[in-house]
Amino acid sequence: MTSRQMVLGMQFSGGYGAEPGAWRLPGANLNSYTDMDQFVRYAHSAERGKVQLLFIADTPVLDMDLTHHAPRQAIDPMLLLTVLARETERIGLVTTASTTFNEPYNLARQFKALDVISHGRAGWNAVTTSTPAAAANFGSSVPPRAEKYERAHEVIQIVQALWGSWEKDALLLDVEGKRYADMDKIQPVNLQGRHVASRGPLPIPPSEQGQPVIFQAGGGGYGLELAGRYASGVYANPYTIEDARAQREALRDAAKRAGRNPDEVKMLAGFMPTIASSREAALERRRFLDEVVDLHQRVRYLGTMIGLPLDPDQLDQPLMAQQLADAMPSPHDPRSVRALEVAREGWTLRDVLAHGVIDYHPVVAGTAADVADHMQEWFEAGACDGFSIALDGFHDGYDAFVDQVAPILQERGLFHEDYEGTTLRENLGAHEQYGLDLRLSQQARA
Amino acid sequence: MTSRQMVLGMQFSGGYGAEPGAWRLPGANLNSYTDMDQFVRYAHSAERGKVQLLFIADTPVLDMDLTHHAPRQAIDPMLLLTVLARETERIGLVTTASTTFNEPYNLARQFKALDVISHGRAGWNAVTTSTPAAAANFGSSVPPRAEKYERAHEVIQIVQALWGSWEKDALLLDVEGKRYADMDKIQPVNLQGRHVASRGPLPIPPSEQGQPVIFQAGGGGYGLELAGRYASGVYANPYTIEDARAQREALRDAAKRAGRNPDEVKMLAGFMPTIASSREAALERRRFLDEVVDLHQRVRYLGTMIGLPLDPDQLDQPLMAQQLADAMPSPHDPRSVRALEVAREGWTLRDVLAHGVIDYHPVVAGTAADVADHMQEWFEAGACDGFSIALDGFHDGYDAFVDQVAPILQERGLFHEDYEGTTLRENLGAHEQYGLDLRLSQQARA
Ligand SMILES: Cc1cc2nc3c(=O)[nH]c(=O)nc-3n(C[C@H](O)[C@H](O)[C@H](O)COP(=O)(O)O)c2cc1C
Ligand SMILES: Cc1cc2nc3c(=O)[nH]c(=O)nc-3n(C[C@H](O)[C@H](O)[C@H](O)COP(=O)(O)O)c2cc1C
Repeated sequence: MTSRQMVLGMQFSGGYGAEPGAWRLPGANLNSYTDMDQFVRYAHSAERGKVQLLFIADTPVLDMDLTHHAPRQAIDPMLLLTVLARETERIGLVTTASTTFNEPYNLARQFKALDVISHGRAGWNAVTTSTPAAAANFGSSVPPRAEKYERAHEVIQIVQALWGSWEKDALLLDVEGKRYADMDKIQPVNLQGRHVASRGPLPIPPSEQGQPVIFQAGGGGYGLELAGRYASGVYANPYTIEDARAQREALRDAAKRAGRNPDEVKMLAGFMPTIASSREAALERRRFLDEVVDLHQRVRYLGTMIGLPLDPDQLDQPLMAQQLADAMPSPHDPRSVRALEVAREGWTLRDVLAHGVIDYHPVVAGTAADVADHMQEWFEAGACDGFSIALDGFHDGYDAFVDQVAPILQERGLFHEDYEGTTLRENLGAHEQYGLDLRLSQQARA
Repeated sequence: MTSRQMVLGMQFSGGYGAEPGAWRLPGANLNSYTDMDQFVRYAHSAERGKVQLLFIADTPVLDMDLTHHAPRQAIDPMLLLTVLARETERIGLVTTASTTFNEPYNLARQFKALDVISHGRAGWNAVTTSTPAAAANFGSSVPPRAEKYERAHEVIQIVQALWGSWEKDALLLDVEGKRYADMDKIQPVNLQGRHVASRGPLPIPPSEQGQPVIFQAGGGGYGLELAGRYASGVYANPYTIEDARAQREALRDAAKRAGRNPDEVKMLAGFMPTIASSREAALERRRFLDEVVDLHQRVRYLGTMIGLPLDPDQLDQPLMAQQLADAMPSPHDPRSVRALEVAREGWTLRDVLAHGVIDYHPVVAGTAADVADHMQEWFEAGACDGFSIALDGFHDGYDAFVDQVAPILQERGLFHEDYEGTTLRENLGAHEQYGLDLRLSQQARA
């Protein structure tokens, strides 16, 4: 099998599922936010399905109202991934950590330790953090974008240099010769940037993959440049195939500009499937999830998406003929075309919303085959190199994906039958790198 | 049993043992530095022995020569304790983290997450970090002591306030009522110091013990004040009973000055036992450990301790009669009295050193009963509330302590027969505290 296959990552959120109402699903464990056993169970399921990686998005802030919704984030991503490192064997372990509100030495140490503990399966999604409330947790405000990204470049370079501060054969462990390590091969990095600096070395030897893999997400032109230089994987949020292809081309161009082979950078498109025995069953599940959502507000927003003043009283009715005639997708929200498409099928407004037309990723609510079809269409259209999958509810969603969707993708030759190796680099097809990328430093010198 | 009993903590260092040559001991796993399974094994042993806590000292720097010595520190203490949290049930999990080179929000989040994952067994040894090479890893230098400790007070208060930012019954988990949490009971802390600030709240509910326990170590008068205010446990390094009693009295006075009951603060004295079938066997083990130590340098230092110019050529001879007559313990090193005592017994200089007279804790090299006798003597003299035990080599030292020393202490009524409860607070006899200590804030207001 030499044809291109997709990379799959599973998003871990607060523990219940990507939908804020997932904690109420019948069968869900109400303590999933704090109960690590639940996460282990989902990780085992994903690993059984040969999923390449788990991903924990993170922003250092609690900025949501928990009255009706469970937390969107994990209590602590590094600790959670450490738990999973011990209880899984092949799956990659990736989390976001802020380049703005962490010191490079602390980042380098924890990610490298995770990489060693997991035997070469760690990845770092390096983001700058743009939430003012997160900045306030550090007694700070969000710096101007240019400054924030200048610091991000410095932080990533120092972290990678620290990762490479032990040569691969520095450890000797020679009992007879009484030599533990070769200190000529453990060297300081002595890097001084405008924003951050570190002397090193880090107290950590290489892992089975050398050092963790870099991921990146968002941030416009600045983010693209960061991704083009350092990332092996990029999280993206396109809503349409066209949008996704454009984002992927821009990313590949950014990699080329940095002197890299664009195939080294995989774009993972966010995707939220609801997997059920039928489309109707999927909608029923999503209507239940929507019970904690402010649907009146959503109806109004749906109105702005399709160019109509909509009244929440119409929630349980479909659009009327005149409304359908007047409706026009808004050019300001890429989800509008699909929203109107679904409305035209005659669903009530509640059901239009249950299709997930206002969710933060494209939603497919239907059978495993519907979900696989969508993924195949995107993948074959060159819209992405894989998907970052946010399952609506975890307690049954992981098994549904692994037992029903993954096998279809495998049958169609779109997804690997087994892990290629034991490290994240091997399973992601990420190039070898140890320490700084020398191609980049040569450019900087030139 | 109402009489006072001792608190025992086991020091975890790089993974081999407290002696830098422990990695060479026959039977030691050469990969103990990176192999978490080893640490789990030692933690299981300690827990079998009802030891109250494990302690990881830490400074964010690799500032030692690894040519002959294994690392003194763990690759990452928070990640290592997370591993142990999952694989143990009762033992406390305590690590050092710097108040100078960490943000309070990051500290608060990771320690509280560890506390939740371990079901109420986390502790934080809050130290200011005094190593210039560690500061250089953060592109910084060590601030003047007054400033460093001013920041430490702010950091600890913000961390504790963040820990208390969820009231104990904030989580509702009411499926029918569609209410996940009571947002009136999850509040920002809005603390602004001179050095650090944070808005909060933390995204983490209380643990079984509410919040982690604070420990403290070193720092002279400034350190004492910190300990008196916040600490439930203090690591100390006395070399003699007199010194220890003075340190303990000073600590109890500091607690009283802060308006606390001095029994709330336990002083743990550092102690390094080598446990063997006889004193001669213990010395043989320590002579092997000393093979990677620069004994010529130590002989010279031994000379300054006992007021004689000593020549390394005398390494394998005892002191001569004239030397013994001229010798005088140095008033500048509290270990000198014992060094001369041992020398007077007629041992060769190599064996005097093998007694551990220059180690960084008092050493007893002998049988389990010798070790227990020493601990009993110190404890009954009011020199400490317990011990922080640094075993010379872990691979057999943990079991030796647990199977041979602990039972003697238990028989003598000096050490508990079983854990008092499931949380670190219960097992340490630490008072309940949630959020900031109100007694302190009242003082501050007064
Ligand atoms: C798919 C995707 C995932 C993201 N994940 C995170 C995350 O986990 N944490 C975070 O703080 N920001 C995350 N972001 C936000 C971006 O990193 C970035 O901050 C945002 O796009 C705004 O750009 P700016 O940094 O230039 O302001 C994500 C963005 C996208 C598109
Ligand atoms: C028993 C003991 C344990 C200590 N453990 C640590 C530690 O784990 N990490 C650290 O950086 N410093 C540690 N220290 C050092 C003290 O925190 C303190 O920095 C030192 O005594 C110097 O005081 P200063 O902070 O006022 O300069 C320890 C000190 C003692 C006595």
